[in-house]
Amino acid sequence: MNAEIISIGTELLLGHVVNTNASFLSEKLAEAGIDVYRHATVGDNPARLTAAIMRALGRSDIVITSGGLGPTVDDITIETVAQLIGRKLILNRIILKDVKDYFKSKKVLFPKESLRQAYIPEGVKWIRNRVGTAPGLIAQYFSKKIVCLPGPPREIVPMFERDILPIIKRMSGGPVIRFRTIKTTGLAESQVDGKVRDLLNLKPPTTVGIYAKLGQVDLKIMAKAKTVREAERNISTVEKKIRFRLKEYIFGYDTDTLESAVVDTLIKKGLTIATAESCTGGLLANRITNVGGSSESFKAGLIAYANEAKESFLGVSHKTLKLHGAVSRPVAIEMAHAIKHYACADIGISITGIAGPTGGTKNKPVGLIYIALVTNEKCIVKEMRFRGSREEIKLQSSQAALDLIRRICALS
Amino acid sequence: MNAEIISIGTELLLGHVVNTNASFLSEKLAEAGIDVYRHATVGDNPARLTAAIMRALGRSDIVITSGGLGPTVDDITIETVAQLIGRKLILNRIILKDVKDYFKSKKVLFPKESLRQAYIPEGVKWIRNRVGTAPGLIAQYFSKKIVCLPGPPREIVPMFERDILPIIKRMSGGPVIRFRTIKTTGLAESQVDGKVRDLLNLKPPTTVGIYAKLGQVDLKIMAKAKTVREAERNISTVEKKIRFRLKEYIFGYDTDTLESAVVDTLIKKGLTIATAESCTGGLLANRITNVGGSSESFKAGLIAYANEAKESFLGVSHKTLKLHGAVSRPVAIEMAHAIKHYACADIGISITGIAGPTGGTKNKPVGLIYIALVTNEKCIVKEMRFRGSREEIKLQSSQAALDLIRRICALS
Repeated sequence: MNAEIISIGTELLLGHVVNTNASFLSEKLAEAGIDVYRHATVGDNPARLTAAIMRALGRSDIVITSGGLGPTVDDITIETVAQLIGRKLILNRIILKDVKDYFKSKKVLFPKESLRQAYIPEGVKWIRNRVGTAPGLIAQYFSKKIVCLPGPPREIVPMFERDILPIIKRMSGGPVIRFRTIKTTGLAESQVDGKVRDLLNLKPPTTVGIYAKLGQVDLKIMAKAKTVREAERNISTVEKKIRFRLKEYIFGYDTDTLESAVVDTLIKKGLTIATAESCTGGLLANRITNVGGSSESFKAGLIAYANEAKESFLGVSHKTLKLHGAVSRPVAIEMAHAIKHYACADIGISITGIAGPTGGTKNKPVGLIYIALVTNEKCIVKEMRFRGSREEIKLQSSQAALDLIRRICALS
Repeated sequence: MNAEIISIGTELLLGHVVNTNASFLSEKLAEAGIDVYRHATVGDNPARLTAAIMRALGRSDIVITSGGLGPTVDDITIETVAQLIGRKLILNRIILKDVKDYFKSKKVLFPKESLRQAYIPEGVKWIRNRVGTAPGLIAQYFSKKIVCLPGPPREIVPMFERDILPIIKRMSGGPVIRFRTIKTTGLAESQVDGKVRDLLNLKPPTTVGIYAKLGQVDLKIMAKAKTVREAERNISTVEKKIRFRLKEYIFGYDTDTLESAVVDTLIKKGLTIATAESCTGGLLANRITNVGGSSESFKAGLIAYANEAKESFLGVSHKTLKLHGAVSRPVAIEMAHAIKHYACADIGISITGIAGPTGGTKNKPVGLIYIALVTNEKCIVKEMRFRGSREEIKLQSSQAALDLIRRICALS
């Protein structure tokens, strides 16, 4: 069974909006065992939309549209589909009440344009929109299905997951697909590639893809099988091989982030932490505190941007700063010691470096970073060199610092 | 003159990757006066790719593909296009040297699969890839052009802007399109909508779109005209109306961010700032220090997450904490005063609140935030209530704090 996705909206063709709906729907359809062979995007133009839907119906069992369900005259999906399936539009009183209630709850006067949203093709199944005003539709066209969904991600995501996916899963009956993402940090893409080259060349039904981003390389296993159990068994076979080869470079799976993995470990081991940042300007603390429950282990953070702040807040000695400069091993160590001490934390970690774009010298170029980690037993300093924009250097530095915390926690 | 964009890659159809190339190319093409009527995405499948290109060539003057230029057997764009235009693939020695040099610079052995990337259709114009290994192509098909570009955003963006766009602009000769984005904060989408409803209903050649994200509402003016001057004049007419109606809610234009607008103003006025954050966990400082040159005005930041940290680092009185709780007006004020004082800054700003998902009570629910700003002359506290996930509440809080700084700076 296969499907095509048609995204509707001139704003997409003008590049004002990135199309996240197509990837969201694709991933969910793949998991339900539905093959997606094509995406198409068309503007708010009835002729082009009709042509796109007809062509997709010729090739696929299900055509899913997103967008064009709004109250304005530019929103043409419902009329176009009604015409295509030869049904007239009729007012649906339940939808009308929903739409009116929506505006009432927002304490906004019911705008008369929104009346349009209560008209749907006669006899067609509709889906309540629990977030916005536009209902979804499931229309039958001979043996094929046309599913019309709203455009805003915050409306389409819950509607698809709650109301559409179960129906599609029942229809599918075909193979299922399962994914597992294995997340690593500390190796370049080419290094990960070198360790799992044979797995990257696996052919369906079980395949592995590699996805690199800054400071992180993910391996995504995909298994297609008749049953969930078989798919998961096949994933697990490949996963074991990957785990064996990438060992401690793996920090997590699927929805894990490096920061969530770090905070989980800190909490599990009952360890507290405090941060002293210079060039990362609070990014490390921000990432840690993005994790719900991090207040259990995160005590405090200091952003000592100016040299005076390093002296006055952390008591880094003037002499050390003079002698070695702010971007140096000794300053990193003093910063980590100080924040550990003042915050009464088990772990103190510091980052000092040059994020650029200016401020680099020949000996201390942009991208030079020192990270120090201090515990009751240990003191570790790392010198690293990163490339990229200011934000990219900040991100890689925070990534390296989180990885260092993760590795130290694993040992303790 | 019109164009279609074809994105190639099974990873897009599986939803593993969001298609940012299509929106990037669309925006640039629109600015060059090229109409984009359709996007399509197909997998790594020669038959489907051929069909998609042929259909697009039937409708459009330029077909731009992205992806499928890599070294693996899944990468089929070059072979497919060669077959379509009836040219054979020949080894290009200059490209081969480029590819070999690329691996040499990375200190990686030349992988024999990459030899494929040096084969291009005979007699076709190619474009050097200055970031990766796959060259771009510009092939002629009767009166139409097929442009093949690499898939990774960091490769396609510079190649398109530097080498392809100038060629397309010369070809276009048609109307030009200019955009201006006006960025606001402090008003809800419906409030902005209410103030500019008539402008949102403008018909081409000059139109206005509204784009809301968390804590920010953008208005995008688009003008199509025969000349750049005419387009800019039409934009400017609408812009004046918007400026008149939204006044101080406007913080910037086009590529500005709220943090860049704030840092620019701080530097221009010669003011320094220091931050004391609780629930935002460093996000405010991180956003400020993302702006290049922010070290001129950002002195230091403290993340006092635990109550003891508020006491020990900032000297917030135990009594105030006991009496009013950490999330309160008096604590926010003490935090802002203290950080201003210790960091010797002109402005001290603090945020304390409950980011959730846990920790809320009936009187102090999740999303309750106090922001205090202290200068030599003023002390301002704001109570705000936000909704959303932990990260969304953090983001909106930092947005409100930046907006407060911006407004105070504008007055001083």
